[in-house]
Amino acid sequence: MFHMTSAAQDALTRTISRSPWHGWGDPADAHPLPDRSWTMLRRELGVTRRPQPTRPVALEDVRLPESRLAPDDLAALRAVVGTAYVHTDRLARVEHAAGKSYLDLRRLRDGDAADAPDVVVTPADATEIEQLLSVCRDRRLAVVPFGGGTSVVGGVTGSPGPFAAAVSIDLRRLNRMLSIDPVSRTAVFQPGMRGPDVEGALRPHGFTLGHYPQSHQEATIGGYVATRSAGQASTGYGRIDELVLGATLATTEGTLRLDMRAPASAAGPRLLDLVVGSEGALGIITEVTMAVAPMPSQTAYAALAFPSFGEAVEGLRSLAQDLPHGIRPDVVRLSDPDETRVSLGLAGRAGQALAAYTKARRLPAACLVVLLWEGNDARTLRERKAASWEVLRRAGAVRMPSAIAHAWEKGRFSGPYLRDELMGHGVLVETLETATSWANLVALHDRVAAAIRAVSADQGVPVIVQCHVSHVYPTGASLYFTVVAPEAADPLAQWRAVKTAATAAIVAGGGTVTHHHAVGTDHVDGLAAEVGELGMRVLRAVKDTLDPTGILNPGKLVR
Amino acid sequence: MFHMTSAAQDALTRTISRSPWHGWGDPADAHPLPDRSWTMLRRELGVTRRPQPTRPVALEDVRLPESRLAPDDLAALRAVVGTAYVHTDRLARVEHAAGKSYLDLRRLRDGDAADAPDVVVTPADATEIEQLLSVCRDRRLAVVPFGGGTSVVGGVTGSPGPFAAAVSIDLRRLNRMLSIDPVSRTAVFQPGMRGPDVEGALRPHGFTLGHYPQSHQEATIGGYVATRSAGQASTGYGRIDELVLGATLATTEGTLRLDMRAPASAAGPRLLDLVVGSEGALGIITEVTMAVAPMPSQTAYAALAFPSFGEAVEGLRSLAQDLPHGIRPDVVRLSDPDETRVSLGLAGRAGQALAAYTKARRLPAACLVVLLWEGNDARTLRERKAASWEVLRRAGAVRMPSAIAHAWEKGRFSGPYLRDELMGHGVLVETLETATSWANLVALHDRVAAAIRAVSADQGVPVIVQCHVSHVYPTGASLYFTVVAPEAADPLAQWRAVKTAATAAIVAGGGTVTHHHAVGTDHVDGLAAEVGELGMRVLRAVKDTLDPTGILNPGKLVR
Repeated sequence: MFHMTSAAQDALTRTISRSPWHGWGDPADAHPLPDRSWTMLRRELGVTRRPQPTRPVALEDVRLPESRLAPDDLAALRAVVGTAYVHTDRLARVEHAAGKSYLDLRRLRDGDAADAPDVVVTPADATEIEQLLSVCRDRRLAVVPFGGGTSVVGGVTGSPGPFAAAVSIDLRRLNRMLSIDPVSRTAVFQPGMRGPDVEGALRPHGFTLGHYPQSHQEATIGGYVATRSAGQASTGYGRIDELVLGATLATTEGTLRLDMRAPASAAGPRLLDLVVGSEGALGIITEVTMAVAPMPSQTAYAALAFPSFGEAVEGLRSLAQDLPHGIRPDVVRLSDPDETRVSLGLAGRAGQALAAYTKARRLPAACLVVLLWEGNDARTLRERKAASWEVLRRAGAVRMPSAIAHAWEKGRFSGPYLRDELMGHGVLVETLETATSWANLVALHDRVAAAIRAVSADQGVPVIVQCHVSHVYPTGASLYFTVVAPEAADPLAQWRAVKTAATAAIVAGGGTVTHHHAVGTDHVDGLAAEVGELGMRVLRAVKDTLDPTGILNPGKLVR
Repeated sequence: MFHMTSAAQDALTRTISRSPWHGWGDPADAHPLPDRSWTMLRRELGVTRRPQPTRPVALEDVRLPESRLAPDDLAALRAVVGTAYVHTDRLARVEHAAGKSYLDLRRLRDGDAADAPDVVVTPADATEIEQLLSVCRDRRLAVVPFGGGTSVVGGVTGSPGPFAAAVSIDLRRLNRMLSIDPVSRTAVFQPGMRGPDVEGALRPHGFTLGHYPQSHQEATIGGYVATRSAGQASTGYGRIDELVLGATLATTEGTLRLDMRAPASAAGPRLLDLVVGSEGALGIITEVTMAVAPMPSQTAYAALAFPSFGEAVEGLRSLAQDLPHGIRPDVVRLSDPDETRVSLGLAGRAGQALAAYTKARRLPAACLVVLLWEGNDARTLRERKAASWEVLRRAGAVRMPSAIAHAWEKGRFSGPYLRDELMGHGVLVETLETATSWANLVALHDRVAAAIRAVSADQGVPVIVQCHVSHVYPTGASLYFTVVAPEAADPLAQWRAVKTAATAAIVAGGGTVTHHHAVGTDHVDGLAAEVGELGMRVLRAVKDTLDPTGILNPGKLVR
């Protein structure tokens, strides 16, 4: 049990510099991989550290199409927001060319910005957004809403689709908390607030949103809602779709206002659930009303291990089913044997000690579990921790040093930095996720992992396929895969083959095509498989109503 | 703390006879009002017990339009389900003429069945439903889906709208649990299972749905999902929209299959939330996948009182915000001063004693609170009860005899019987409900009550307006009003005036137009006020996609 360290708190509220166009985050926060990690990568993948990592091409060498925006279109945009907020310079366009997937960064690092928008506009408020949508509808300009730009599914690529030009509407100036109701524990936010800004605005009032995806430091609250996001602590605080209570959606046909009137309603189908997950294809979210929670001051940590993935899954199932929400941990992470092995391998001497430890305890397929509980009362936290331990002990867990949980927390946002570094040494790093019922979880895990391994074997490429369960529910859980492999001659084709095989395995295996990464361009076919032809007709009908010209985020969510 | 009595368990699983066409439930379960209640009604409303209660007109005297169904339409329906399952007799048509609102029963008791459907069909399965929808679409026959027939908002009235005739599709033969997954704690049901049947099917497996609206003994699980129902224990087990994980919707354009693939997904807008609350206007639900919970064996009971409604609301807010879900009570009911007074008045000697008790404790505006906790472990129940008591004591609660909570449980499904009896003596009994944020709850309560009192004063009619809070959430709660008044010369106009005034007060006061009764015909305008013109266009677009001919439940949900 620890009072929350200022370092841990800072990580949640510290605003960092925006990511460079070719990578992630603030370079000052990157920590190079130590030698021991490279030793492991060489052993497992035959990958060696290059003497000089390959750098992204220089900005001036990026292949950027000429802006297709007509002068009168440019003038019309300037008339809405003012000349200072309409950007056609090379940097702005390249920064808005893509999100932050491996595919996006691979292409950008190699100088391919073919998908850059023709112009970037930064409106001041909802009114300017409504006006911009009118202008773009009348002039048939594609609109790509842009929050933090952290999509990993192609959700913000700036291609115009069938339209003459594409306008990226960057929401960074809509960055205020508009109101807070401490009695009802709700707050209203503009969409462009980044994760740390949201926490920074809530903290003086004693509240938190409790929403920390790995993209937290860069992603925006509007993006969370638009993509049905889940965060690292969503087992405790709830997914974004459980936290959102109202939203305003500016569309080309007017503004859809779904105010929070009540915590729950029987007034027909819940239209708010069309806004949540709308991914900029139905409109631009200009305001969200969120449930907030008391800001915790203390954290309890635990790490433990199970002898096998199957037993560990049963343990987490007990945790989710036998302990009430609010008692079970706020953060639950179970690594499968591959992720456990790699994590311990990357952890250096401490990792070697732990590996020896699991060996001594006869855990050859050991699975690490990291648990965090947050709150304001040490006794309650102790009781919650004891209750979880009791459940997991009965399921076969053994204790591990809680330093592992601290280490996880310290590195909770560092994954993307690591990927940037690995890409400089010719390593492909891809993540993908799904969710399914408890009864189907292990089978789906094995099926997806096998599909990725099979396609990599076909390519003659060694691969690490590791997975964790990071969100548990009474009826099921998520699976989050990380794929690491040496880049083949055509890394884009290599990526596509892996992605296609994994998606096919997920769909055929009964999982959802995405648990929290959203649809973007990558999962458009998967979504259709999931909701069927009639489901897609319904979605299309909603889009045709709110965006009859089809200018909103063309190619994303629905074709 | 008590092991659940067999009487309490029986009430949840005992299948009762279907309601008569003019009233509620099994007449054998009705308990006539005692003298003391009539004394109170005379004192408060000037209402006296009639020597002979007015009886509903005889079935043969009900004014029933000739069936408008053409012979070839009749033959086409028979070809799908078989002659034995197509009913055009007087009783079947009158039984399907309406739901169970005051308005419905007032009209039927007086012999007005103008809204009766022209034919009642009872299909065997989903395939027959799909075929029936094809036939009705091709022949332009209105379709009214009918589950338990317990709508109190005009959701099942059998009028054909702009079509030649209306077909009531009664789902009573789709009454099986199709599968259960005890590992994931989910089960799949056909839509026509009534509440007790659902519990009866789950109990041998050790599970419960935990969904007990007052209509439990008559209503169906398909109806629950179609109306976004909430039950008396939904504070504990969750609203139906929190329990439903998948659904199949037969429509005139094909079948929308939204299987449960995962406990949560980011695969676009959640289309399942269009099925939940679709009220038969988008299709007929033929299958639902629900989360189920371990069947409890023990119940803890508590009753307490607050000095004022405002303090009681603050107490319930603390309960909802400070205690985790799963710790706080499963049933929470707070009666406002009027409902408390009437409840104690109706409770006879025990009530007089309690009234004296609250007086002695200087609680002139006392508000009763009833709490139930359910579970399988006595120690946990004791701890949960102690935690709630601690929160409420700090908020100003005083203990009352827990017999009050037992009495509530015993009478939990008895309200509609009481209404039947009162209607026989010329008394109007109407219920309506809303929900809003905690910050707005007392203001909305006062506003709605004042609006009903004002319109009654305009009519020169005394009135009892009582209210309870029965569903609490971290961000707000529900308000459930019961209106009791002597019937005026034109009780239908009287009802309409009350309903119109209450709805206007709810909409203007920032509440939702319905927390769990759904839209039906009564709240069509309220829904439009709530989601706005663009929201209604979205809903209409969805309907046009799934029901382009508009035959599904015309006049309900959307015009």
